[in-house]
Parts: sequence; C-alpha cells; structure tokens
Amino acid sequence: MNHIAVVGAGSWGTALAIVLADNQYYVRLWGHKGEQIKEINERHTNSKYLPGVELPELIKGYTDLEDALIGIETIILAVPTKAIREVLGKIRQFQQSPITIVHVSKGLEPDTFKRVSEVIKEEMPKELLKDVVVLSGPSHAEEVSLRQPTTVTVACENLSSAEKIQDMFINQHLRVYTNPDVIGVEIGGSLKNIIALAAGITDGLGYGDNAKAALITRGLAEIARLGVALGANPLTFAGLTGIGDLIVTCTSVHSRNWRAGNLLGKGQNLDEVLENMGMVVEGVRTTKAAYQLAKQMNVSMPITNALYDVLFNQRNPKDAVDSLMARGRTHEMEDLSSIIFKLD
Amino acid sequence: MNHIAVVGAGSWGTALAIVLADNQYYVRLWGHKGEQIKEINERHTNSKYLPGVELPELIKGYTDLEDALIGIETIILAVPTKAIREVLGKIRQFQQSPITIVHVSKGLEPDTFKRVSEVIKEEMPKELLKDVVVLSGPSHAEEVSLRQPTTVTVACENLSSAEKIQDMFINQHLRVYTNPDVIGVEIGGSLKNIIALAAGITDGLGYGDNAKAALITRGLAEIARLGVALGANPLTFAGLTGIGDLIVTCTSVHSRNWRAGNLLGKGQNLDEVLENMGMVVEGVRTTKAAYQLAKQMNVSMPITNALYDVLFNQRNPKDAVDSLMARGRTHEMEDLSSIIFKLD
Repeated sequence: MNHIAVVGAGSWGTALAIVLADNQYYVRLWGHKGEQIKEINERHTNSKYLPGVELPELIKGYTDLEDALIGIETIILAVPTKAIREVLGKIRQFQQSPITIVHVSKGLEPDTFKRVSEVIKEEMPKELLKDVVVLSGPSHAEEVSLRQPTTVTVACENLSSAEKIQDMFINQHLRVYTNPDVIGVEIGGSLKNIIALAAGITDGLGYGDNAKAALITRGLAEIARLGVALGANPLTFAGLTGIGDLIVTCTSVHSRNWRAGNLLGKGQNLDEVLENMGMVVEGVRTTKAAYQLAKQMNVSMPITNALYDVLFNQRNPKDAVDSLMARGRTHEMEDLSSIIFKLD
Repeated sequence: MNHIAVVGAGSWGTALAIVLADNQYYVRLWGHKGEQIKEINERHTNSKYLPGVELPELIKGYTDLEDALIGIETIILAVPTKAIREVLGKIRQFQQSPITIVHVSKGLEPDTFKRVSEVIKEEMPKELLKDVVVLSGPSHAEEVSLRQPTTVTVACENLSSAEKIQDMFINQHLRVYTNPDVIGVEIGGSLKNIIALAAGITDGLGYGDNAKAALITRGLAEIARLGVALGANPLTFAGLTGIGDLIVTCTSVHSRNWRAGNLLGKGQNLDEVLENMGMVVEGVRTTKAAYQLAKQMNVSMPITNALYDVLFNQRNPKDAVDSLMARGRTHEMEDLSSIIFKLD
C-alpha cells in the first residue's frame, strides 16, 4: 500500500491527511512541534488545529523530516507560504529520488511577486522534482475533517500528474476537479484574501449584503484582470478556485482576513488590528504585492488600490469604500469585458 | 420637475420610490390596498413592507392607477410577476401616449417560459410602448431604503433608454450600470432562486460553507449555460445580476427561497413548506419552468434536475445533494467551457 507525506501539521495539512487516510493511504504527517506530534501519535488528535476531531490510525506523526520522506514519491506541502523556501532547503539536502510536490498554500511572495509553484521550482533541483501540483478551492479545513461535502481543484500543466493527485484525494465527500491552469488557480487563491479584507471592512462599517455582493463581484473582476495579464485562463476565475473560494472567504466569519478587515472597518488601524489578531494576516502582504504588481503591469485594480491606501497610507476606510461607489456612470459590459476577457 | 410612477407598493417598489424621491423626482406610488396608501400619504411610512423607514415627502400614494399615470412617461413596474399581465391589461385601457416601462420583477412565466420583458411586449400595443428596461442586481430593498451602498444594472437593447434610466436612479448610495443584454439579466435574476432553494437545502441538511460555495459556483455555471442557449451574453453572468445577485440570495437568511430550501433540508415536504411560509416561493415555479425549458433545449442542468426531483418527485434531499457530489472525475475546464462559453 502507498505511503504519502503531508509536510505541515496545521489544520489544512491535517484535514488533507484525514482524506488520504480515509482513502487507505499510510500518511506520514510531519510537524516541527514535538508535543503536537506526540499528541497525534498517542491520542490521535490535533486539538489545537482541529479540536474534537479523531484522526484515523493510518496517520502517523513525524518530527524528523528526513524520516518522514524515506521512500516517498508524493509530498503534500502544507506549510505557511513564508516557510516554504526553508522547508524545501532542508528536503533538498537529503532527498535523492524525484518527488511530486502538491502545494496547498496561498499567497504571493512579497517583492518578488512569485507564486508558490515558482518558488518550489526555484528551490528544488530539476532532477529531484517530478512535478508541481497545486490543490485549491472553497474548503474550510474543519468541514473537510468532518467529511462534509467539499469540492477542490488540482492544477498542473501535466494532466496525468493532476489526474494522479485527483485519484488520491477523490472520495464520496471530496469532489476533485483537474485544471491545467496553474497560474489562474494560484492567483485566484492568493488574491481572494484582498477582497476578504475589503469585505470585512464594509461589514465593519455597517454596510449590508448589497455592498458586499457588489464588492465580491467587482473584486472577482479585478483579480481576473490581473490573472489574465499574468497568463491565466479567464475561465478559471469562474470556477471553484475563483468565485467559489472567494465566496467562502468573504462570507465566513471564520476567515482571518475578513476578521482583520472587520476590525479596520470598526476604526482600528493596521497596527492595532495585527496586534489584536495575534497572527499573520496573509491578505495584508498580498495587498501590497498585488498593488505593486498591478502598477508594474499597468492593470487597473480599484479595490486593491483603495485597500492599499487604507492599510499603508492611513486612508479612512469609509472614504475609501464610498469613493469606490462614487465613480461615474459605467456600462457593465465594457467594464467586465475589459476585465475578464481581454486576452490579446 | 419630473413625475415618475412606481406601480406596486411592496418593499422593492417602495425602496426604489425612495431613491427617485432622493433624486428629486415627484413619485407617484400606486398600490391597490387603500389602508396602505392612506398610511403612505398620512404617516409617510409603509410599515408592513419597510418597517421603521420614513418616506420622503415627494412620494405620494395612489390607489387609482389611471390617476397615477396621468402625464407619466416612465413607469417602474414593481408588481409580482404573476400580476403583470393583469396590471398591463388595465394600463392599456386608458393609456394614450407611449411610455417606457422599467420592470424590476424576477421569474419566468410557467408553461410559456416567457421572461417578463417578453410578457410586457405581448401585453402592451407597440404604439404605447416606448421601451422596456429591466432593473436588477444584488439589492435587498431594506438596505436600499436605508441608503446603504448598493449596485444595480439596468438593461435595455436601446442604450440611450438604459442611460436615461441610469441617470434617474444613480446617486451617491446607488451605483447603476448599464448592460444591453436583456436576456442575460432577466435569466440571471430569475434562475438564481433555484440555486437559493438548493443552498437552503444544503444548509438545512447541516452541510457547511464548502458545499454551499460549490453549489453556488456550479449553479452559476448551469444558469449561464441555459442563458447562453437562450441568447444571453455569457459575460452577464460574471456581473452584478449574475454572480452578484446569486451571492446575496444564497447567503442571506432573509431570502425567502433560501428559507424554503432550509425547511426542505430539515425534512419537511413541499406542501408543508409552502404552508409554513404562507407566501409565494418564486423559486419553486422557476425550478419547474427551468427544468422543462432545459429539457426542451437539451441543456444539462444537474442541480436544477436534482431540485426538481426533490420538489415534485419526493426525492430525498440528502440523496439528491450527495448524488451531485458523487459524479465521476471531471476536468474543470471542460466542464466550465461547455457551460459558460459555448457560444456556437
């Protein structure tokens, strides 16, 4: 029977480990915290990240990365985006045979604007990397761990690699689609956090569902516009990793980015928000990266620009939202077609 | 100064009357209930439909339709879909000069499958009808009446008519887009109620945000597929009257269709649900119409079909939802492109 390694024992890594164990794989779940891995092996729980969930016996925790990867052909890489280069640096030192890396992280690298798959290709020597696949979609980890119906997309330029990963994860609770558009899937997953922050702001200001729906709709359009400029297929943004993931992130109070935006809307400044949250708010970094990238590529992103000013130039959130509403008369088609379907 | 008539004094008609009054129009708000119109004129409230909202003095209530329309060039038609033929039949009897009709109703006529604009064109003699415009988008009436930020689309084949209506409604709270795609705007507005019913069912079954996001994403795709087959522009479904309105309807507990679906998911049958709701659930009729229409046009609509079986063939809701998840391995692109962009 097959062994698979899940590198990163946070909530998403653990939820995916459960799916793989349900599908009869031996899962090696790596994390660097000794206490947590001990809990996983002795009590079959990961209570900090998935409270109340019992882990299948086929999941075994590891603290030694080299041990965890012995004989492994497929790695699910589920560490925070900013830890990826470090973890791959370690793997590269002992890994001897080529591996497929399935990454499930969302974000753009600050300053370089690189997507995660680009970072992986940079860090792993060609002879050690069989393929890079991205798995993304509208998927709260808690729900996946409870076997609630969920859909995700696996993207890879190489269809047979994508299908291999599709077969690993698909089951009666998790429906898995393939998509060759790695760029579109990664951009959609990363940039949704910008719109989630903005949605939190409008909610924090006391605006209603109408404003939020408009924001999500226009937000999707500007994400797609940047994505297409970077080489994505516009269709991807109409799918699970585009509109699907955006809906989940913007309408759930569990979303960290939404919560941060909500505090901003209620009058806190960025420093206060980050202190109150006590954890990384990925959308803040992504807003900066997308703002710079859009400028460099000459792509219009009014929501991202307004949010950038709120985050980094002390712009009043209400002013920013109201000014988005106050732009002149517009024809929706021109707006949308210049956004989503300008392929030339 | 200009006079405009709003025919129908429910929550949406009244909210739009407020917008027009804010924009300095004299608004004649027609309703057939004497008590309600008296309240509007004497107490400047419409407490059954918009509790707690004070109506501007520029709104004047009428119970006599002929009176209300004297000298009027533009009518906002805000009566329930099934009352439209009757109301137009009356107007036709006394109206002497051509009028522009802006309709704000959502639904397809059962059996004929006609959109509201088609019904209007059938009922009104050509010489009395200057133009038909549809106004739609993600817009709870309550929020509009409270001047919360909202966006809507006005659609008309004749751009200058659309722009005239855009100018009437646009202000600092309400952002108005134009769109020439009447079919797409009407189909999106009508069919969203099917997906809202289905979303209510998944919530009623206790499924989570992941399932709902998947449903909305796939639901948008099948709405677009039928719309395109009927002649709509696929882009419209990526806009405010497509994805925007769908999000509001599927994620708000105030949505009547969502609530009906929720009761179905919790185990009530259709008769019990309709009795408990005590009012028309537009999505039930629309599901039947879309099911028949999709069959006739040979368009694949798996969510609509599953819902049809739940509503009319006593299919178990959990079975229906689970079977939607259990379809085979799929490539997202094939699925989406056959759905949204097959234009030939």
